[in-house]
Amino acid sequence: MTVRELPVLNQPEVVACCAPLAAEVLAAPGAKVLARQFAALGDPVRLQLLSLLATAEGGAICVCDLTEPVGRTQGTVSHHLRVLVESGLATSEKRGRNVWYAVVPGALEALRAALATR
Amino acid sequence: MTVRELPVLNQPEVVACCAPLAAEVLAAPGAKVLARQFAALGDPVRLQLLSLLATAEGGAICVCDLTEPVGRTQGTVSHHLRVLVESGLATSEKRGRNVWYAVVPGALEALRAALATR
Repeated sequence: MTVRELPVLNQPEVVACCAPLAAEVLAAPGAKVLARQFAALGDPVRLQLLSLLATAEGGAICVCDLTEPVGRTQGTVSHHLRVLVESGLATSEKRGRNVWYAVVPGALEALRAALATR
Repeated sequence: MTVRELPVLNQPEVVACCAPLAAEVLAAPGAKVLARQFAALGDPVRLQLLSLLATAEGGAICVCDLTEPVGRTQGTVSHHLRVLVESGLATSEKRGRNVWYAVVPGALEALRAALATR
C-alpha cells in the first residue's frame, strides 16, 4: 500500500482590520469587515462545524465527515462551510472526489484581538 | 453646584457556556448560546455601538450620545442596543429621562475564551 502525502491547504494571509473595540472607537470600514466574520460565527451549526475543523486531526477534515456530527444534510453543511470560507475563517481544497476544510491560521486570533479589553 | 453620583449599572454575571472551539467539539446547547452572542456582533452598527460603550469615559454612555457617532436615528440605535442587551453583551439603566448603556463586564472576555486556539 502506498501512503499518499496530502497537500497542505492554502493558507490565506490574515490581516487585522482594526484596533480592539475597547481601545478606540471602531470606524465604519473596519466594522464592516469584522461584522461579516462575526455574522459567520452567528449560527450554531457553523460554530459546530468550525469547532470540528479546529479540532480535526492533522488540521483538516473531509466534508464527508462533517454531516453526521452536526446532523444536517450535505447540502446544508456545504452551504454553511461556504459562508465560513467566504468570510475568511475557513479554507477549502479539493482532494480526489472530496473537499477538505481547515480553519484559516490566525483568523480566530484576529477576532480574539478585536475583543481584547485591556 | 452639586455633583450627583451616578449609580453603577447592573452587572449581570457572565457564565462561560463551553470550552474553546479548538479544544473540544462544541455541543449543540453551547453552540446555541455562543451563536446568539456572535450574531449580535454580526452587524457593523452594533459593533460600532459596542465599541462606543467599551471606550466610554466612566464605562457607561447615554443613548443620547450614541446616535450622532453612528449616523443613525434614535429608533435604529435603540433597536441595535436592545439586541446587544438581549444577547447579554450590554446592560442598560434608566437615569432621569435617558437610558445609559455599558458593556457587561466579562462578556467580551467570555467570547475571547471561546475563540482561544491554544
